[in-house]
Amino acid sequence: MDTKRPISPAAEEILGGYFPVLDHGFVSLVDYMGTDEDVERAARVSYGYGTRKTSQTRGLIRYLRRHHHTTPSEMVELKFHCVMPIFVARQFIRHRTASVNELSGRYSLMPLLFYRPDAQQFELQSRSNRQGREGEAPAHVYEEAVRRWEALRIEAGGAYQWMLEQDVARELARIDLPLSMYTQWYWKTDLHNLLHFLTLRVDPRAQWEIQQYARVMAGMMKRVAPLTYDAWIDYNLCARSFTRAERDALARLVEASGENVRARAGASLGKAELSALGLSGRELAELVEKLQPPERPDFELDLSRMRSAEDVGKEMSEAVPGAKFE
Amino acid sequence: MDTKRPISPAAEEILGGYFPVLDHGFVSLVDYMGTDEDVERAARVSYGYGTRKTSQTRGLIRYLRRHHHTTPSEMVELKFHCVMPIFVARQFIRHRTASVNELSGRYSLMPLLFYRPDAQQFELQSRSNRQGREGEAPAHVYEEAVRRWEALRIEAGGAYQWMLEQDVARELARIDLPLSMYTQWYWKTDLHNLLHFLTLRVDPRAQWEIQQYARVMAGMMKRVAPLTYDAWIDYNLCARSFTRAERDALARLVEASGENVRARAGASLGKAELSALGLSGRELAELVEKLQPPERPDFELDLSRMRSAEDVGKEMSEAVPGAKFE
Amino acid sequence: MDTKRPISPAAEEILGGYFPVLDHGFVSLVDYMGTDEDVERAARVSYGYGTRKTSQTRGLIRYLRRHHHTTPSEMVELKFHCVMPIFVARQFIRHRTASVNELSGRYSLMPLLFYRPDAQQFELQSRSNRQGREGEAPAHVYEEAVRRWEALRIEAGGAYQWMLEQDVARELARIDLPLSMYTQWYWKTDLHNLLHFLTLRVDPRAQWEIQQYARVMAGMMKRVAPLTYDAWIDYNLCARSFTRAERDALARLVEASGENVRARAGASLGKAELSALGLSGRELAELVEKLQPPERPDFELDLSRMRSAEDVGKEMSEAVPGAKFE
Amino acid sequence: MDTKRPISPAAEEILGGYFPVLDHGFVSLVDYMGTDEDVERAARVSYGYGTRKTSQTRGLIRYLRRHHHTTPSEMVELKFHCVMPIFVARQFIRHRTASVNELSGRYSLMPLLFYRPDAQQFELQSRSNRQGREGEAPAHVYEEAVRRWEALRIEAGGAYQWMLEQDVARELARIDLPLSMYTQWYWKTDLHNLLHFLTLRVDPRAQWEIQQYARVMAGMMKRVAPLTYDAWIDYNLCARSFTRAERDALARLVEASGENVRARAGASLGKAELSALGLSGRELAELVEKLQPPERPDFELDLSRMRSAEDVGKEMSEAVPGAKFE
Repeated sequence: MDTKRPISPAAEEILGGYFPVLDHGFVSLVDYMGTDEDVERAARVSYGYGTRKTSQTRGLIRYLRRHHHTTPSEMVELKFHCVMPIFVARQFIRHRTASVNELSGRYSLMPLLFYRPDAQQFELQSRSNRQGREGEAPAHVYEEAVRRWEALRIEAGGAYQWMLEQDVARELARIDLPLSMYTQWYWKTDLHNLLHFLTLRVDPRAQWEIQQYARVMAGMMKRVAPLTYDAWIDYNLCARSFTRAERDALARLVEASGENVRARAGASLGKAELSALGLSGRELAELVEKLQPPERPDFELDLSRMRSAEDVGKEMSEAVPGAKFE
Repeated sequence: MDTKRPISPAAEEILGGYFPVLDHGFVSLVDYMGTDEDVERAARVSYGYGTRKTSQTRGLIRYLRRHHHTTPSEMVELKFHCVMPIFVARQFIRHRTASVNELSGRYSLMPLLFYRPDAQQFELQSRSNRQGREGEAPAHVYEEAVRRWEALRIEAGGAYQWMLEQDVARELARIDLPLSMYTQWYWKTDLHNLLHFLTLRVDPRAQWEIQQYARVMAGMMKRVAPLTYDAWIDYNLCARSFTRAERDALARLVEASGENVRARAGASLGKAELSALGLSGRELAELVEKLQPPERPDFELDLSRMRSAEDVGKEMSEAVPGAKFE
Repeated sequence: MDTKRPISPAAEEILGGYFPVLDHGFVSLVDYMGTDEDVERAARVSYGYGTRKTSQTRGLIRYLRRHHHTTPSEMVELKFHCVMPIFVARQFIRHRTASVNELSGRYSLMPLLFYRPDAQQFELQSRSNRQGREGEAPAHVYEEAVRRWEALRIEAGGAYQWMLEQDVARELARIDLPLSMYTQWYWKTDLHNLLHFLTLRVDPRAQWEIQQYARVMAGMMKRVAPLTYDAWIDYNLCARSFTRAERDALARLVEASGENVRARAGASLGKAELSALGLSGRELAELVEKLQPPERPDFELDLSRMRSAEDVGKEMSEAVPGAKFE
Repeated sequence: MDTKRPISPAAEEILGGYFPVLDHGFVSLVDYMGTDEDVERAARVSYGYGTRKTSQTRGLIRYLRRHHHTTPSEMVELKFHCVMPIFVARQFIRHRTASVNELSGRYSLMPLLFYRPDAQQFELQSRSNRQGREGEAPAHVYEEAVRRWEALRIEAGGAYQWMLEQDVARELARIDLPLSMYTQWYWKTDLHNLLHFLTLRVDPRAQWEIQQYARVMAGMMKRVAPLTYDAWIDYNLCARSFTRAERDALARLVEASGENVRARAGASLGKAELSALGLSGRELAELVEKLQPPERPDFELDLSRMRSAEDVGKEMSEAVPGAKFE
């Protein structure tokens, strides 16, 4: 259909298409408002009369992002349809600036779809990151876990279906469904808040499962606002904050002028000196990480995986217990 | 341009057009995301599998609004460009859920445009509403006010221009500009929050000047989501909250069944009885107002007043002091 | 300890005490900022110089609430510690203006405590309210449900404990725990947003379980700001919105003056007339409900049920699987 | 008065005292909820059962802040009473997460107090920062500016007073008051959002006048939550974000291990190499700034300047035009 509104052809290409995530999940970009040009237009209203207008869109967008001038990026909105396990939804929902409409277990029947981690994702409690995981679990543990999951889900799904057959209120029938069950919602937010979400959720310290959702959403965002995407990669995602003490240390190791930046000959700081600057042992380990050259991640969508809304809708509705309850 | 996104033809008709408000102000709808159908779609994800799908869009939208199910209307966004006096902008900005990019007096030169109330708007301090106005001021008072406004504005504009010529920092040069000066911004919000804004700001107790902005914005919203507009008129704007004591009173005066609603023969409550139910004197006056038959307001836009962006932009930039500062 | 800050003695009496909700849940008021006097003080800054200051606190607070002047009530804050089933937490969290810190299943071990509905709460799917329940289920259905819940919870708890013993990452071990499991959090909000939450959640259409939490929190709020509590009961909770069409109908049935309010002799509106005014059949049923005399609910706390933090903390930590994981 | 709530003795010492800012402005901390210990307590609910509890408060608070775990700091609230010029208030209000009650020019009479910049603050438009100022203006320009300000304020104040005498509505009488006029409000926010505000507003790129407010508020915050204050200085205020390209550059100049951090012998990057890494010319200038050793600012309050509420209130009310309008 024809519109006078700003258009992003790359976003139109995937609009309403469903990209698989995990074993039964999906993300679809279902609507958007504005593109990079609208970020620029909003910024220009601040830099109005009497200011030079020579900057190109790219330069302005990069300047805004580098200097944390985030309000113009609130002028762009993205709306997603997401199908994800409840424990993932519980992490999403902490981002309070989004608008959400979720499938209600009080009104509706829940499709009996559950997330089963793959063997390579089934890892042990991390030693270094107290909330994470690292190192694949032994095969026999995974096999036993799968056996237990399957038994539990048959039993929980069976109890749910049986209560529905007894006409028990849906809001009660659902209380023993597990956190691995898939739910779904519309989730809408502006570009500024989306970037904050993505920065936290594509991070390796986020739970691996929500990372998969965030990576697909980053690929979608790239199609709506590609210049903002690049600036986000360079100035947010691959940037690191250097603390006061770390900057003190760097200033002793590096000198900079308008012409070049160079190592100070022979400069070195040992543990004692770093500690005197205020760096704890843990902070030294963090500094080592920050001084590695950053890798540029890639969130390009694989268009060959895109599926139609009808197809996905059918898959969901077939998993609903007992067509007779419709 | 072509899009797969939902379209509202009536909104497209006015998109980017500028509607005059007050003597130098404007409102333009510059973008929107979604229509009534998207409110419905968001609601349907909650009323998903196992629920009947017989409601029509209109019935569902009216049901949602009547029962304060407001989250689906967060799924629609509207973006406006507004030119308004600073004292009006200061009332707008109290609605914290909107995204805003305003012309910055630190970066930019401010156009020397000021709001001058018309004679019929130049009223006395209200006796009944301690923050309002009522009753036109005498003609000689208006004439003297105009004379003072004009002198002040010439002087304030002159001081501003003189400081700019002396290269004084813009952020200082502007500090004695008056609250009647026009500023401008992009202002974006979702339909739920817009309706809340409109309900408060088309109200006769809002300052008359901001009412004029809200009335035009209501006309624009009507073109984006006409079913929601109707439901808002019927269930929000022309509705009134009846308190516990008022409901007690009504129950003694009226009886209702599934078949009819009728006055109880001879039922009457005097001041003493109303007071015993808990109604103060002021509340009785409020009840009398609520029991008047409501008038249905009309916020239809007058398309003949619509002007082009270029035209309005030219008017603004010509009011900026001294082209040499560009 | 001594403070210059405003104090509510009735709130101090229960501060840090734990009130049981459901079978293993609790709510505790752990901190508050401000009282009714602070709502008044914030309002007075708006009604400052040149206004009469004769209103008493009670009158002002009632005026503010009746006229939806809600910003002064944002000046009071309450902080709660809540222990509730995950499906209840998922309803709480939709109130996005609260600040929340929840027990994390990624970091921490979850106590094996699950909510088991009582027989009298175990009801059938409601016919009138598509998301609710009504009418107790047959005893044999309840017995079978209890049997299934117990089996499921033993199995789910056992799988969780076994995975922890195998050192599986906590964030994975927890994914098949059921929605009936208890979680806990600190939950802080301002008085304005709390009242909005309470209005929605003490409502009979809210799920019965969250109503129990809201009722206890209402009792706590009453101790922090008793005048606001009364005004909330009278002007929000027991008030009803009458729509444009309903007001049209009332105006034909009732006439009001500054002296009295009385039924119009012989006035009656049948279905056809109500329909002509715009009332649908469903709206007529809603009007009948609104015209019943309202009942005044009571949210008084039962102080004899209050328990100590130590006691409750011990109960929780004893339910954590395997002290050896500490 | 006696309370069971957490207390900060250093905050109690200044509670309700007024600290002067600019020529007629003030800030007062009028209430607070929680201290550093409450940030810790909120974090502990996440790191609950099965986690080691050896961290000290200081270490935990520093860890949280360094890693952007900001939700626990939302659990502390501060409430301020601020008297500031309207153009400063217009910058404050952009922080939308605060609760605000402002003196209303529709209800109330405005005190005739205006901000007059000192000579040393009266600077020219900055060349380097397009929204700032630098370099004192010539004395004769300042003298002429003062002359114009005084004339304008006498005239604007006179017109205001005259219209009030003619009983013109207050909401109209005030429209030509200048942006330099003082207004006042209660302003309440949580510690997380306050720190965001302070980071932006003590920054030298913020307008000098709002910096003065933010500096006093930082000194007040330090008394409520001193450990959080220290962590904010070290990890937010004096930290800088190094971009992807800057980290690439640093990795070529510095090497780090768990034992030490040292300059790479002879490493140097010229303009061409930095450009090849993606640094624009402007970014090189920014990098030079970031590599300076940071200075630690000091926001200690000067208690000798603290004034009583009565004293300040008297000063304000005496500036209201015409006691006869009271």
